Amino acid sequence: MSAVKINLTEKFDLFSDYWSPKIIGELNDNQIKLVKLKGDFVWHSHQDEDELFITIKGKLTIKFRDKILTANPGEIILIPKGVEHCPSVEEEVWAMLIEPKSVINTGEVEDAKTVKNLDRI
Amino acid sequence: MSAVKINLTEKFDLFSDYWSPKIIGELNDNQIKLVKLKGDFVWHSHQDEDELFITIKGKLTIKFRDKILTANPGEIILIPKGVEHCPSVEEEVWAMLIEPKSVINTGEVEDAKTVKNLDRI
Repeated sequence: MSAVKINLTEKFDLFSDYWSPKIIGELNDNQIKLVKLKGDFVWHSHQDEDELFITIKGKLTIKFRDKILTANPGEIILIPKGVEHCPSVEEEVWAMLIEPKSVINTGEVEDAKTVKNLDRI
Repeated sequence: MSAVKINLTEKFDLFSDYWSPKIIGELNDNQIKLVKLKGDFVWHSHQDEDELFITIKGKLTIKFRDKILTANPGEIILIPKGVEHCPSVEEEVWAMLIEPKSVINTGEVEDAKTVKNLDRI
């Protein structure tokens, strides 16, 4: 294994589908993923996994049962395990996610947006 | 526990010392850290931990035994466990690190730059 530099824009340019995270690297028991978001996702939570959203482009809005958080580039959103959330964005957003390998994008909810076998780019 | 949004610039403005990572959050068994870099670090490796450097500001250069990688904002460097490396930057760099809680900044090397009890900001 050798160290690698990854240019995020070059990776984002490789795909255009929304809500379908792509794996760009492994980090211990976690995966580094890129995802494009647009529109409304589904309400869900991850019982055993914290999630980190790093906004790369656009304005990332995530709804929670008690509040709404919005993160621009240079801002991150940290979601503890078990906390229900629903990403909801008007304009296209690019985000980098750091999540345990065990995470399924829709958490405990089985939905049309559920993606179980992520592509690696 | 509740979800949080973190503005990285606001956190970076809270400290000015170099080579001393500050914890801004926990992510499963990992910590999210911010660090300011300037000058030369020490050659070291982490036997059991992969490391992720996300460049937030400046031009991050990391020397490896077989190459040199430079990452600007929008670029990341992923260092697999066991790979010797030495950050070396001319102008101040701001970086976000995602690392297991067990990581010590200088790896297996005990040095004047070793920091064992990180502040949380």
